[in-house]
Amino acid sequence: MTIDDLPIRDELKGKSPYGAPQLDVPVLLNTNENPYPLPEALVARIAERVAEAARNLNRYPDRDAVELREGLAAYLTKSTGFPVARENVWAANGSNEVLQQLLQTFGGPGRTALGFAPTYQMHDLIARGTGTHWTQGPRDDDFTIDLDVALAAIAVQRPDVLFVCSPNNPTGTAVPRETVLALYEAAQAVKPTLVVVDEAYIEFSHQPSLLPLIEGRPLLVVTRTMSKAFGAAGLRLGYLAADPAVVDAVQLVRLPYHLSSVTQATALAALEFTDTLLGYVERLKAERDRIVTELRAMGLEVTDSDANFVQFGEFADTHAVWQAILAQGVLVRDNGVPGRLRVTAGTPDENNAFLDAVRAAIKEL
Amino acid sequence: MTIDDLPIRDELKGKSPYGAPQLDVPVLLNTNENPYPLPEALVARIAERVAEAARNLNRYPDRDAVELREGLAAYLTKSTGFPVARENVWAANGSNEVLQQLLQTFGGPGRTALGFAPTYQMHDLIARGTGTHWTQGPRDDDFTIDLDVALAAIAVQRPDVLFVCSPNNPTGTAVPRETVLALYEAAQAVKPTLVVVDEAYIEFSHQPSLLPLIEGRPLLVVTRTMSKAFGAAGLRLGYLAADPAVVDAVQLVRLPYHLSSVTQATALAALEFTDTLLGYVERLKAERDRIVTELRAMGLEVTDSDANFVQFGEFADTHAVWQAILAQGVLVRDNGVPGRLRVTAGTPDENNAFLDAVRAAIKEL
Repeated sequence: MTIDDLPIRDELKGKSPYGAPQLDVPVLLNTNENPYPLPEALVARIAERVAEAARNLNRYPDRDAVELREGLAAYLTKSTGFPVARENVWAANGSNEVLQQLLQTFGGPGRTALGFAPTYQMHDLIARGTGTHWTQGPRDDDFTIDLDVALAAIAVQRPDVLFVCSPNNPTGTAVPRETVLALYEAAQAVKPTLVVVDEAYIEFSHQPSLLPLIEGRPLLVVTRTMSKAFGAAGLRLGYLAADPAVVDAVQLVRLPYHLSSVTQATALAALEFTDTLLGYVERLKAERDRIVTELRAMGLEVTDSDANFVQFGEFADTHAVWQAILAQGVLVRDNGVPGRLRVTAGTPDENNAFLDAVRAAIKEL
Repeated sequence: MTIDDLPIRDELKGKSPYGAPQLDVPVLLNTNENPYPLPEALVARIAERVAEAARNLNRYPDRDAVELREGLAAYLTKSTGFPVARENVWAANGSNEVLQQLLQTFGGPGRTALGFAPTYQMHDLIARGTGTHWTQGPRDDDFTIDLDVALAAIAVQRPDVLFVCSPNNPTGTAVPRETVLALYEAAQAVKPTLVVVDEAYIEFSHQPSLLPLIEGRPLLVVTRTMSKAFGAAGLRLGYLAADPAVVDAVQLVRLPYHLSSVTQATALAALEFTDTLLGYVERLKAERDRIVTELRAMGLEVTDSDANFVQFGEFADTHAVWQAILAQGVLVRDNGVPGRLRVTAGTPDENNAFLDAVRAAIKEL
C-alpha cells in the first residue's frame, strides 16, 4: 500500500511533505535557526517552570493562554514603544499555526490570498491547505515590491487575505512603511481584506516594526515568532498582534486547548530572558552585515538583508554552487529562486567557514 | 470593532468558540480529566528531559518525531499484544490535531464525513473547520449503534470519512468489534472510506482495543491520546496507528515542525512511567463502575460506560439538575444530550461529593 493507493485529496496527489532537506554536516546554515544555544540559566528556569506546569499536567492547559499573551504583549510594548494589551495578542504552535488559523477564519474555499513571490513558501502551502485560492504578484529585480505592480495585482486578484512578509524570506527584503500603508488602503478599496504583515525576522531588521500600524486598522495583523530572535525554534511559539476583534475571530477556529502547558511555561521562561536573548540578536545582525560585505567583496550580487540570513548569487548553475559549498561541510538553502542561494547568519566561526567555502566554490566555477 | 464587522467566513458568523464552561468550584468533573497529578518522580524526569531538549531549543525539533513515535509504538505493542512499528504511528498536538490532519488529507471541500450522534463534538467541528460536509446517523435509545440504521446512513451519505468513537464521548458506549468490521466493509463497498476509530478513552474500557483491526485494512485508523490514561491533558499529545501509507499521507498536510521539542521530551518522559500511570487507570475504572452502580441505586438511568466518565439521567429539566449539582460545589457537563448529564470519574472523595450532590439534587426535584 502506498499513498497513491489511498483516497487522498486530488490536490495532494504526487506532492511531497514540505521541509528543508537535512544533512549531517558540520555547519548548518540552511533553516534560519539562531546559532546560539539558550543560556544555561534559562535552561534551568525552563526546567523549573515546566516542572511547575507538570504538577498540574493532568488538567487541560489555560485555553486562553492569558499569562503568556500578557508576557508577549509586554515584550511588544517594550520593544516597539507602542502599547499592546493581552487582548491584542494571540499565540499558537509556531507562526505557521497562527497563519493557518487566520486563513481558516478569513480565507478558505471561495476566497483568495495574494503574496509577492519569491516569499515564504508556507504562505502558499497553508493557503492551499485551508482551501484558499493562492495567487502571487511579482517582485522587482532587486526583490523589493514595486508598488504599481503590486496595486495592479490587488486590482486583478481581489484578495481576501494579503500577505506582506517583512523582512521577506528568502530574500531578506524589508518592506517600507509607506508601501504597506498603500497596499492596505488599496486592498480595502476593493473589498475588506485581511493584511498579514509577517514579521518573523523583524528583530534583525534595520527598520522598526510596523506593529504600530494596527492602530485604527482592524484588518491589519502582524505575525511574529519566538523561533528566531528568541533562539527557540524548537519551542514552536508563534503569535500575532491585531485588533481584539481579530483575536476573538481566530478563537472560532482554533482547536480547543491548542497550546500545551509545557509550551506556555517554556515561552514564559524565555520571555524572562528577553534582554539576554536580544543581545545575541545584535551579534547576529553584525555578522549578517559582515556576510553581505564579504560576499559583495567577492564580486557576488547580494540582496540587501534585514533578516538573519542573506540571499546571494547570481549563479548560472545554482545547484552546482550549493553542492560545492556542501562539499566544504557547509549546508545552505536553495529556495528555488533562480540563480540565488540563501545562507543563515551563524556564529563568527560558522560564517568564516561559509565564506571560505564560497571562495573555494566560485574559484571552481 | 467586533467580530461581526470583520470579513470572516459566513459559516463562522454568530458562532462561539468551542470549549466547556469553566467555573471555579471545588470539584471539577466536567472535562474528563484524570484527577491524579503525575507522580513527583515523573515531574522530575520531565524537568530533566525538557532541560536536555532546551539546550538545543535554538534548533527546530525532530520534524518526524522518530523517538517519540517509537515510544508510542512500543506502548501500543505492549498494551494490545499487536505489533506496532514507528512507521504505523503519527503524533500531533492533541488528537484534535491528528483528526484535523486526517480530514485535511481524506476529507475537505466536496467530501463528506459521517458520525453517529451524540458523539464527540469535535468530529463535527473539525470536519466543518476543514470544509468537510458533516453528516450524522442516529444511535439507538441506549446509545449503542444500531447496525442496520448505521448501514442505511452509510448508503445514503456515502461518506469519505467515517467516525466511530469507541468508547464514545459523551455516552461512554464501546462499539463491538463486529460492528466496526461491518461498518468498515459496508463503507468500502460504497467507495474507499477512511474509517477513524477514536479510542481516546480505550484504556478505561472493559473491552480490548480495536487496534489489531488495522492489519490488512489500510483505511482503518485508530486515534489515541495521552490526555486521559496518561494523565497528561496539559501536554496535548494525540497520536494514531494505521497503515504506514496513511502516516505518509498526513505528512502532506502537517505543518512542518508541528510538534515542539518540549512536547516530545515531556511525552517521552511520561511513557517511561507507563506502568505507574496505568495503575491510576485501574483505580479510575473501579470508581467509574462504583458511580454507575450508585447512580442506578438512586433509580437513575445510567448508560453503560467503558470510559472515565458516566452519562446519567433522565431528567425533565437537565439544566436545573446541572445547576443543583453545581450549587453543591460539583461541576459536571451538559453535553446537550436531551435529559442527560455527564460526570467524569474523579478521586474517591470527589466522586462521593458528586454522589451526595446528586442525591441532594434529585430530592429537590
